[in-house]
Amino acid sequence: MSVTSVPGFEAAGIAAGIKPSGNPDLALVATADRRPVTAAGVFTTNLAQAAPVLVSRAHLVDGRAAAVIANSGNANAATGESGRADARRMCALTAEGLGVAPTDVLVCSTGLIGIPMPMAPVETGVPAVCAELAAGPDAGLRAATALMTTDTLPKQTVVDAALGDGRHLHVGGMAKGAAMLEPAMATMLAVLTTDAPVGPDVLHRALERAVQDSFNALVVDACTSTNDTVLVLANGGAGGAEIGPSGPAYHALVEALSAACDDLAHQMAADAEGATKLVRLTVRGARTAEEARRAARGVASSQLVQCSLYGQDPYWGRVLSELGASGAFLDPERVDIAYNGITVCRDGVAALHDELAVQASMTRRDIEIVCDLHAGRGEATVRFTDLTHAYIDENMGTS
Amino acid sequence: MSVTSVPGFEAAGIAAGIKPSGNPDLALVATADRRPVTAAGVFTTNLAQAAPVLVSRAHLVDGRAAAVIANSGNANAATGESGRADARRMCALTAEGLGVAPTDVLVCSTGLIGIPMPMAPVETGVPAVCAELAAGPDAGLRAATALMTTDTLPKQTVVDAALGDGRHLHVGGMAKGAAMLEPAMATMLAVLTTDAPVGPDVLHRALERAVQDSFNALVVDACTSTNDTVLVLANGGAGGAEIGPSGPAYHALVEALSAACDDLAHQMAADAEGATKLVRLTVRGARTAEEARRAARGVASSQLVQCSLYGQDPYWGRVLSELGASGAFLDPERVDIAYNGITVCRDGVAALHDELAVQASMTRRDIEIVCDLHAGRGEATVRFTDLTHAYIDENMGTS
Repeated sequence: MSVTSVPGFEAAGIAAGIKPSGNPDLALVATADRRPVTAAGVFTTNLAQAAPVLVSRAHLVDGRAAAVIANSGNANAATGESGRADARRMCALTAEGLGVAPTDVLVCSTGLIGIPMPMAPVETGVPAVCAELAAGPDAGLRAATALMTTDTLPKQTVVDAALGDGRHLHVGGMAKGAAMLEPAMATMLAVLTTDAPVGPDVLHRALERAVQDSFNALVVDACTSTNDTVLVLANGGAGGAEIGPSGPAYHALVEALSAACDDLAHQMAADAEGATKLVRLTVRGARTAEEARRAARGVASSQLVQCSLYGQDPYWGRVLSELGASGAFLDPERVDIAYNGITVCRDGVAALHDELAVQASMTRRDIEIVCDLHAGRGEATVRFTDLTHAYIDENMGTS
Repeated sequence: MSVTSVPGFEAAGIAAGIKPSGNPDLALVATADRRPVTAAGVFTTNLAQAAPVLVSRAHLVDGRAAAVIANSGNANAATGESGRADARRMCALTAEGLGVAPTDVLVCSTGLIGIPMPMAPVETGVPAVCAELAAGPDAGLRAATALMTTDTLPKQTVVDAALGDGRHLHVGGMAKGAAMLEPAMATMLAVLTTDAPVGPDVLHRALERAVQDSFNALVVDACTSTNDTVLVLANGGAGGAEIGPSGPAYHALVEALSAACDDLAHQMAADAEGATKLVRLTVRGARTAEEARRAARGVASSQLVQCSLYGQDPYWGRVLSELGASGAFLDPERVDIAYNGITVCRDGVAALHDELAVQASMTRRDIEIVCDLHAGRGEATVRFTDLTHAYIDENMGTS
């Protein structure tokens, strides 16, 4: 279950010496035949975009790519023109190693901001990682491992989906992140592979949709970091007619990409080292889905809500207050709130409930909160974690 | 230096038994002659407004009030129609005690959300606090003390301002809050008194302006709580012509109200128990003042920035990232960032600087960060605190 689970893709991961620790820090994913295939990317909306983001976006203009080179240990962000030259150099070195055009290589970086990329280990590391490219799950795992910063586990996924016409498509993926866990290097990176037969515009649209419902539904400090990147390469290996912008095959593609992204997002949240709770919050009954998302994110990003969850306190008054402050429309006296299936607030006031039962349920690691605004049919779900002493320990310094 | 520093105002504060601890919890401010005077209020923008907010807003429709009754220990929020009846009852009891109309009484509450107001202690406490009304600083201090929740100190102020035509005006004030310190009851309340001769519309406009530059420039979890309220009573004791909506006298009024609010806001930030740092962040060179405010609040409300300040780490990369994510326009390669007067980032990349000097300066309690976007003339300053272990301890539970 990795980027190499999709036939036609190879991967590699090595310790190039970018990280002072000597841990793996350079990953590569490439097409097995070194030909460029359909590619798409979704990038951070931060105005202070890192050099690799700018370079990858430029290289994606033609909707084609043959490889993704990715490093951990340095974000190559806030590094100016020399940083962009370094990112282009990473592509050129990869292109040289693989015999492809430099503009067919995409690049991602994650690590500390504001420090020039150490190019000596990159110069020796990129040829070395090119030489290691291989098919199979071990190669995929090595690549996923080289993406890790303070992740405790590599994050990989594979999805198999029926297109409804006898064809099957596959999506493989790897990611690193960062749900509340290491914001000093809080980038979310994901690289997906698929054998879907699809053009760049449709692939881009499907990817945006998948990211919206998965990574963007994860409330992480990283959600607008300088480096956030999700890339997908599609080699058409599933065969048959190209998937269009609508219809059952398109929806199957969106579903498959969404499932892969959602699995990776869930792994990120579960790997939040500082966290003791993994919370799934649904807001329903908002006027629109957009307002539901806004309300859900307002609650999920509240330090007060996060702290009370760490304290296992079902303090719904704070949830109601954050809903009211979120910008989403609501009539406070129609709001219902349930913790772990037990309604604690109905019509905006305390509901009679089994307090011992709800208190006991708060000791679980997985917490479910459902808020119903009774104002419409908009619904959204986000995942988030609690705010803990360990979170602070991890984020007090960069060293 | 208190609400009673302005001639013609009296105050009182008692322990009514609303707080289980037995600490003071009921405060009253009233005109000495019990006549209604010009009054204005600025309230939370939260859609889930507490009962006392709704009742005070209704009572302010005529721009007149004779008294403010305020309790700590219970927010009377998310309490529905019976909560509104309780808030109206607090006004009626006060009106009875003072011989004024119930609609000339304003009401504020602060404490836990979602729990019905304990009315038995209110029924006995309001007549008792009415009987204690007195002039002088001790009475003002007792009122300020009764507002406290987890504040460690009462917060009071007095400002003396020349109107430029021989007249002087005075502003007295008290507040409770809540800069990051006790969000389980994170309401910001302030009551101001003044002898300015002014009508309700001009007073309201001047108060909104003062709040914008003071309390709203304090990044507190409470900034959109269910109960946030700032009230002012103006008895015209300074004499002379009524202050109009412009001109030197109007500006002197705005300045005086702003100075009073700013002093109270500073006391709130300084009293943030969980905090070890008091940070003043200025964003200048934004396209507009509004964008400067947005950028400054984006940085100040970042858990990552707050954690790095707790760790005394001048990690400007995180500041740049939050500026870029704030929604304010910037060209990342024109941004300068200085910690305590030492420029650590120039034109968006690391600046050569004395690292030992900046590191040493980070051990101070008061930290100054200045960001220049070089995109215009918009400027804004916010105050905030760091995110600490103690903050989490205080906010893990409501008990």
